[in-house]
This record gives sequence, structure tokens and C-alpha cells, in this order.
Amino acid sequence: MIIMFKKRDNIKEVEEGKYLSPKFDQNDLIPVVTTDSQTGGILMHGYMNYEAFKKTIETKEAHYWSRSRKKIWHKGQISGFVQKVKEIRIDDDQDSIWMSVDIGGGASCHVGYRSCFYRSIPLGKIKNEEKLEMEFVDKKKTFDPKKVYKDEPNPTKL
Amino acid sequence: MIIMFKKRDNIKEVEEGKYLSPKFDQNDLIPVVTTDSQTGGILMHGYMNYEAFKKTIETKEAHYWSRSRKKIWHKGQISGFVQKVKEIRIDDDQDSIWMSVDIGGGASCHVGYRSCFYRSIPLGKIKNEEKLEMEFVDKKKTFDPKKVYKDEPNPTKL
Repeated sequence: MIIMFKKRDNIKEVEEGKYLSPKFDQNDLIPVVTTDSQTGGILMHGYMNYEAFKKTIETKEAHYWSRSRKKIWHKGQISGFVQKVKEIRIDDDQDSIWMSVDIGGGASCHVGYRSCFYRSIPLGKIKNEEKLEMEFVDKKKTFDPKKVYKDEPNPTKL
Repeated sequence: MIIMFKKRDNIKEVEEGKYLSPKFDQNDLIPVVTTDSQTGGILMHGYMNYEAFKKTIETKEAHYWSRSRKKIWHKGQISGFVQKVKEIRIDDDQDSIWMSVDIGGGASCHVGYRSCFYRSIPLGKIKNEEKLEMEFVDKKKTFDPKKVYKDEPNPTKL
């Protein structure tokens, strides 16, 4: 079935070979880190299944597997913030993907920020029973999620 | 037990609050993307359990959970390529981490490259039964893994 990948039968080839032989995890997913081709910063961390990965390569628009909605997710279908794929790389043991995308002046985070990573964790010695208080490194939302998503359910799960 | 985190009892607080409330997955791990504080590029994609996360915050040196070795992994313990943590961010639903580290003139990838992401995947229409041939975007190794790791087992699994 998986005809676009080389079989993983040799560690040397997986690490140093030229053929794509990705490893999907126990849920048939591979983690994907998406960076902003304009700023270089990380926009989001998601997952792809085989179909999402193939669609992304072929259409050059990011498709993910939504774990909360349990379906293929063509990013931007609702919000309009489509991710145009500039480059995709894979790591040494071929079990994670780095994708660089162009989102123009848009956003990537359903909360309204350009990047999902808008909070920074304090570093250093932790006192007992202390809750860690983060800093908002991105203070301004790019869009209003209430206006964009209307009655769509929030994908965040507790 | 997990005293440094706020309980995840409210989606609004998880997304827009200032308290750290990370979500660990079914294996008690959280995915971590590590970028190079000098170049901005992605060095590696790994995982932390609670203990590795706490040690990283407290010591400001990257600790991961090695899934192949099934133990805490103080990065650089064998190779000497310790990762000095400059910043840690968490994403909107607090289930993935972005860490920026300084590795000086060192490397991050056990195959010998500075970054684990040294191969780029071709984009566009895929022909039937075609194996995808990648391009080496990083052609030069930073170190010789045979000299550095000697008889250590290779962490890559098929």
C-alpha cells in the first residue's frame, strides 16, 4: 500500500541513505514541526498520518491529522490561513518531520496568535509546591478566534 | 506528586493562563523541538518525561527521555555536546515544548551532523510506486560518530 516509501530494513540506509522511509508511531502518526519561512520561528507542532503526509507533498499545502477531531485536517480550510509548504525535511532515524511554510501575514494558532508558542517557561531552581508562572512573549493576537471560528468546537482537550 | 504544575481543569486557563500545566501523552512523555540559538534551525525532535523536564528547567542543560534506551538522557554526557538551554516555550494546549539551546561549535545528531534534519524531501506530484529520493542539504559532518561513540549502541531502531 505504502508505495512511495522505501522499506525500513537497514539502519545505515535509514540514517545515511537518500530514500524516504518514514517511521509512523503506534497510532500510525509521525510528529511534524512547522516553522515560519519568514521569521524562522516555530509556528506549531502537529501530526500527520500517511494520507496527510502524501497530500502535503503533492499539493504543497499543509495537511495534518487532527487527533481531537480524528480526521485529515487541511490547515486553513476554516480560518483561511493556508500554509504554503516551502520545504520538508526528515530527521536521522526518519521518525519526525520539519516543515517550513509561508503563512503570509496570517496566523497559525487557533487561539489567535501567529505562533502557538507564545508563552515562555521560567528557568532555574524550582521551589517546593511552586506553580511555574510563564511570560507571554507574544502579547498581541493576529486575529479574533471568535469571529473566525464562530461555533466550531475548540480542538484543545484537557 | 507533580507539584510544579497547575492542574489542567479549565481549557481557557490552559490556553490563555500564565501557569504551566503540561499534558503528557499515553506514554507519560511530551514532545520537544530543539532549535539552535545561533542559527535558529531545528536541531532535533525528542521527548521528555516529568523528571527530564524538571531537570532541564532546573539545571538549564537539556535532559530527554531516551525511548530506545528507556532512561533519562543528559544530552552530551557521552559526546560532550551538552545543550545549554536559552529559552523554553510551550504551545497553546500545552502538549509540546520548544527549546532553544546553545551548542557552541558542536553537534546534535548522533550520525555526526550538526542538525538531525540534514535531508530534504522532494515536493510535488508522486508517480505510482516511485520511491522518494531526498537531497542532502547538509553535506558535511561535524564529527566522526565512530570516534565519539566508540562501542555505544546506535539509538536508531527500524
